[in-house]
Amino acid sequence: MGSNSGNPGLGRPKLEEVLRKRFFYCPSFESYGAGVSGLFDYGPPGTALEQNILEVWRKHFVQEENMLEISTSMVTPHEVLETSGHVSKFRDWMCRDPSTGEIFRADHLIREVLTERVERGLGCGDLGEDVFGERAGPYLGETGRYERILSQIDGFDDGDLARVIEECDIRNPQTNVRVEGPVAFNLMFATEIGPKGGMAGYLRPETAQGQFLNFNRLLEFNNGKMPFASVVVGKSFRNEISPRSGLLRVREFTMAEIEHYVDPLNKDHKRFNEVENVRMQFLTREIQVSGKEEGLEMTVGEAVLKGILDNTTLAYFLARIHLFLIRIGVDKNRLRFRQHMVNEMAHYASDCWDAELLTSYVIFYRAAYDLTVHSDKTKEKLVVRELLSKPIEVREWIVTVDKKKMGPLFKKDLKAIEQAISGWSNEDKIRYRDQAASQGKITLKVEDGRQFEIPSSLFTIEEVKKTTSVREYTPNVIEPSFGIGRILYSLIEHCFWVRSEDIDRCKVLSFPPIIAPVKCLLVPLSNNSAFDPIIDKLSSELRRLGISYKVDDSSAAIGRRYSRNDELGTPFGITVDFQTVLDGSLTLRERDTTKQIRAPEKEILRVVKELSEGLISWDDVLKDFPTFDKQITDIPGITDLYIRE
Amino acid sequence: MGSNSGNPGLGRPKLEEVLRKRFFYCPSFESYGAGVSGLFDYGPPGTALEQNILEVWRKHFVQEENMLEISTSMVTPHEVLETSGHVSKFRDWMCRDPSTGEIFRADHLIREVLTERVERGLGCGDLGEDVFGERAGPYLGETGRYERILSQIDGFDDGDLARVIEECDIRNPQTNVRVEGPVAFNLMFATEIGPKGGMAGYLRPETAQGQFLNFNRLLEFNNGKMPFASVVVGKSFRNEISPRSGLLRVREFTMAEIEHYVDPLNKDHKRFNEVENVRMQFLTREIQVSGKEEGLEMTVGEAVLKGILDNTTLAYFLARIHLFLIRIGVDKNRLRFRQHMVNEMAHYASDCWDAELLTSYVIFYRAAYDLTVHSDKTKEKLVVRELLSKPIEVREWIVTVDKKKMGPLFKKDLKAIEQAISGWSNEDKIRYRDQAASQGKITLKVEDGRQFEIPSSLFTIEEVKKTTSVREYTPNVIEPSFGIGRILYSLIEHCFWVRSEDIDRCKVLSFPPIIAPVKCLLVPLSNNSAFDPIIDKLSSELRRLGISYKVDDSSAAIGRRYSRNDELGTPFGITVDFQTVLDGSLTLRERDTTKQIRAPEKEILRVVKELSEGLISWDDVLKDFPTFDKQITDIPGITDLYIRE
Repeated sequence: MGSNSGNPGLGRPKLEEVLRKRFFYCPSFESYGAGVSGLFDYGPPGTALEQNILEVWRKHFVQEENMLEISTSMVTPHEVLETSGHVSKFRDWMCRDPSTGEIFRADHLIREVLTERVERGLGCGDLGEDVFGERAGPYLGETGRYERILSQIDGFDDGDLARVIEECDIRNPQTNVRVEGPVAFNLMFATEIGPKGGMAGYLRPETAQGQFLNFNRLLEFNNGKMPFASVVVGKSFRNEISPRSGLLRVREFTMAEIEHYVDPLNKDHKRFNEVENVRMQFLTREIQVSGKEEGLEMTVGEAVLKGILDNTTLAYFLARIHLFLIRIGVDKNRLRFRQHMVNEMAHYASDCWDAELLTSYVIFYRAAYDLTVHSDKTKEKLVVRELLSKPIEVREWIVTVDKKKMGPLFKKDLKAIEQAISGWSNEDKIRYRDQAASQGKITLKVEDGRQFEIPSSLFTIEEVKKTTSVREYTPNVIEPSFGIGRILYSLIEHCFWVRSEDIDRCKVLSFPPIIAPVKCLLVPLSNNSAFDPIIDKLSSELRRLGISYKVDDSSAAIGRRYSRNDELGTPFGITVDFQTVLDGSLTLRERDTTKQIRAPEKEILRVVKELSEGLISWDDVLKDFPTFDKQITDIPGITDLYIRE
Repeated sequence: MGSNSGNPGLGRPKLEEVLRKRFFYCPSFESYGAGVSGLFDYGPPGTALEQNILEVWRKHFVQEENMLEISTSMVTPHEVLETSGHVSKFRDWMCRDPSTGEIFRADHLIREVLTERVERGLGCGDLGEDVFGERAGPYLGETGRYERILSQIDGFDDGDLARVIEECDIRNPQTNVRVEGPVAFNLMFATEIGPKGGMAGYLRPETAQGQFLNFNRLLEFNNGKMPFASVVVGKSFRNEISPRSGLLRVREFTMAEIEHYVDPLNKDHKRFNEVENVRMQFLTREIQVSGKEEGLEMTVGEAVLKGILDNTTLAYFLARIHLFLIRIGVDKNRLRFRQHMVNEMAHYASDCWDAELLTSYVIFYRAAYDLTVHSDKTKEKLVVRELLSKPIEVREWIVTVDKKKMGPLFKKDLKAIEQAISGWSNEDKIRYRDQAASQGKITLKVEDGRQFEIPSSLFTIEEVKKTTSVREYTPNVIEPSFGIGRILYSLIEHCFWVRSEDIDRCKVLSFPPIIAPVKCLLVPLSNNSAFDPIIDKLSSELRRLGISYKVDDSSAAIGRRYSRNDELGTPFGITVDFQTVLDGSLTLRERDTTKQIRAPEKEILRVVKELSEGLISWDDVLKDFPTFDKQITDIPGITDLYIRE
């Protein structure tokens, strides 16, 4: 099978022509003009491709692991997303050209301007004072200042961006005017629920919150058993500042998100042995710090042994994701797993790996998932109560207040003081105990901000032991999250090639049969009416077998009809010719090799079904059937008989 | 199989308890308190049920007819929905209690208040002046004034509603305060696309617009052939004023919408003969006008012959919808097709039929679809260019203006007059020609509202003939539209019953196997470890066969485990007992009959697969296998061997 992995980007204009012509997808509301960027409609092949990817995804993850798939609301009240931190933290920084009013996403503009300067040889070797000082993460070796900024820009806050804009003099390339800003822009689409004066809300930016809010119901549904996973497949929304890059950065997208809940004291996965020998590319944090781009190839088993992966549940999911991506047709030479830098991760994450798919958009795009470990992302209490086989001894810190003495001392403030004390965490208790022991008093801040000094004689903080037969814990969460549109686009690029041996340089999309939008093309040799009942019967058989098919009975030459369906990625083609009329035999053509076999209808249908479901390969078929290269285009007597209208 | 069709409503509290306990669905964001009504999350069984309904739907409609399924954006710019008329017309009327600020949907409040009065015997026989005068549609016989209002309220505008509120003194039942209003409330969720000063937009209220905007691409994808259909399955949104009635009135819902494009001159459906004998209930406009509630039962073939259905394409879709609903488990005694009254239809519709499913919400709810015939719903030109085999003669009306004479007469107004003339439709031309012939002049209104009299000597309007080999026409559209949540809820009610012969009065959801959330329950007789490897092997076999299953290895009695899975609607259960350990045989239990058979593993798995896919029925199985009623709970020697830990 051909591939353009040697020269990514070279085929993009040809590919885009195919995608548009065959209606894989198109910009939404195109007839209403520019300005609605980042919204796309999928035509029939794009829609079928997405559905097939999701079907394989569900089989691979949900069915295989008995995950609990649920379906949650997209419209979400303000309060929920305030609690989750999205109202304050889910934002990008925008800057503005004051001369035109044009708005840019600050990091994208800086990246564009500085990349261009580096390409022109500017800024390299400039090792003056570092823009972002000592608070930035590790440097990428002895490269120049612009390269350093480029390598670390994902972790920049607004202050860093403002400093870069000023010190590096970032201008709008079109007008050469220095941009203003940056200013925060929340990426959620805002709306209002109910009639006037109703409730503020947003379109969900991810599906995790809806899963966490149902945690208690899900645990109960699972009969209280851990570990388990919940799943949501559905749309999420990000009101991008200025989306470009086609399907890789959009405002409305299909996500498939897993939340796998584990016991923090036991992160072993019982099926890890099934995947421990899967080999993949790891680009660890250490490799990135050393300035290199090459990943390490090893098995996930080795990665766990070397401590690159913290536990076997994390390792299990990385391997399963790798296997899924290969199964749907991703080129494994253009796939690697990259660990996030410490300053790049979300605040709740303790480790994060991206599956990165190389596409013609030059840089590696984060295409598949974040793998994060949450501790306590929402205020909804995620508590598992495990019944222990033997009671265990637990230690707790207990605060006892001498109310008789404190009352007269603090009078009406007593209530506020008691409230502050009741909110202490275990860490607070230890800290105050130490303070009381060393200073003879503690300094306590109450809710309204006032401070009180409390003598250590008025309270005690003691560690006590007790036995319990219930262990109560908050599970850790491992979150494999898939952006289906990004996977779909990367996959299309990985499957695209041009038949170089072909004089017409025909374009081909080599989707694996299980995800191809249409599995089988039906081509009558000509528009002779003798073929009509045969095509009708085959159509009805294919429908019964659940094989998606398309009839091409246009008057174009047969090779022409095949090549336009190669552009749709249709893996198999059945030709009905005059021999079929005589003996019911059919030819079956495979897209990538263009080889054909000939067999009776029943055999051909069985083979097409097994091929379409991924149960056998074309190589298997060629072992059982000889290749066939003579299409019977004319049989004296038969042709004459049927050609007349 | 049991059924509660005799007494709808009786089982609702029991049913709701089951739906909540088994996590079919629940209100979204429940822990955030009241106020977010009309938003629901589906738990694992609800999600699987919806997916299975959609899978059957896609097979029944999309695959069977080779429809072109596409996927379009939900976020939609203002301009698109202004063009479609939704910005001005997609609204309900709300009224307000001035004492509490509470907001009601006007027609719902009126319906509630007047229904209650009718039930108390008020208003009947009150035949005074009619509230809505002569512009209302036909009356429902000689019933009282309140009944008349109730029967026609769906067609009321704001003036009608205001008059009813005033004349019938409509008050908030809680406060007894007369409500104010009505005021229009647009039902679309509004948002803004892009950063500040961006583009106004809405969440789509239906999926039709996205399909119409892609019409030209779709026609091209279909090689220019008519008729054809496009499909969108996805979420739509309606910001309901005050949603109640559970899943029947929600703010976010899954729709499956077909747009079938036909030649207005030929609405014959070539596969109509396949469905012409389908019998169904028709509640025609005439029956409703006569005040009756009973539909006519007849075949769709008869309905076409009697002129009840205008054409065989409309009839074909009604029959196919009927067959679909029966196939997924709707009770055909609680299903009828009701024709819309003339004043009830949308302005673009020429005929409309609702599939109505009787549920415990007492009145018939519009549960399945609108079937409407659009002429020109969007400004996007839907034009089909058909190449004719022979050139044809067409007639056109041509207007010729004598500019030399008109110029001096109208001077600077000539341009406005010419513009008005150029906007004439064929009907306008005929009307003006008649006016000119009878009065010797015409009266013409131009864009700014001024009128001009134009002598008939200054222009001609003539019919001319020309030949063309291209026929250009705007297709008619037939739009079967399915609200999946409403179907899902009605279906659940139709499938719910209580085992009266059972001492525990166990509840059962008798979903047809093809749509049941889980197809098969696996029950080891006890938690004896001898069963573990057998359950693991069966699980892996069921996964390989693509049959959804659930293991219940809890310590509850076997009957208890079966009955809690009856509440999930799981149609089949495989029991693993000590005999299985000896000879590999399994028992298979069917949910509705609770009958069992016993056979070797291979046979049982084959049977479960064929049952789950709807290829065979349980009656077929009982013909091939004897029923089995002795579960082997203990075998000396074997039991002893394995029970020790």
